[in-house]
Amino acid sequence: MMTTQEVAERLCQHCRDGTEEQGIEELYSREIVSVEPMAGPERDPVSKGVNALKEKHKWWAENYEVHSTGVEGPFINGDKFSVIFDIDVSERASGQRWRAKEIALYEVEDGKIVRESFFMAPME
Amino acid sequence: MMTTQEVAERLCQHCRDGTEEQGIEELYSREIVSVEPMAGPERDPVSKGVNALKEKHKWWAENYEVHSTGVEGPFINGDKFSVIFDIDVSERASGQRWRAKEIALYEVEDGKIVRESFFMAPME
Repeated sequence: MMTTQEVAERLCQHCRDGTEEQGIEELYSREIVSVEPMAGPERDPVSKGVNALKEKHKWWAENYEVHSTGVEGPFINGDKFSVIFDIDVSERASGQRWRAKEIALYEVEDGKIVRESFFMAPME
Repeated sequence: MMTTQEVAERLCQHCRDGTEEQGIEELYSREIVSVEPMAGPERDPVSKGVNALKEKHKWWAENYEVHSTGVEGPFINGDKFSVIFDIDVSERASGQRWRAKEIALYEVEDGKIVRESFFMAPME
């Protein structure tokens, strides 16, 4: 069973390598709960289960193009860890491009990520 | 009653102004729970109550000198928020000086911070 620190380092590596989908298979619980701060009017901020999470990733990839992702961390506290993401992204429909920094918080149980939540700076 | 975003912005301002003690009085619950990732062998990682928190701040100030504190955020998710700190600090006893980045996570209830926890990058 991986320690929290091992899980954290593997997750960061997947994000740096652009192999997030593989990271989901390897590191996430089937019961993963994912909480987005700004889900938009038509999307539930909380998704439950690994299939819902994959659906969310798919929706994201269809609607947004990520030009680059900065990954800083992991930062550890017991069975939780945190990562700073700095993303350069365009919305495909509008072509609007911006950079956003967000903090992700992960909770690990029995060597798997069981909960993730994302913290964003308020829009300027 | 302050919203989570108002509490978050006030806290960041106190950290930028070096008025953290005032921030404790203004923004923290009397029942605040504070969790440090690396408390050291002689210190409990969890402190409970505002007096224990003040004691921790006092212990910190006696043992460490902070040369500067970078504050980035707040980053919001519902009733939680997060802040990135970048501190330049010396241990008074040894004179050893280093920089550390840490992520703080705060939880707000009824307009007061009820829990804070700190996430640190593993030592190199």
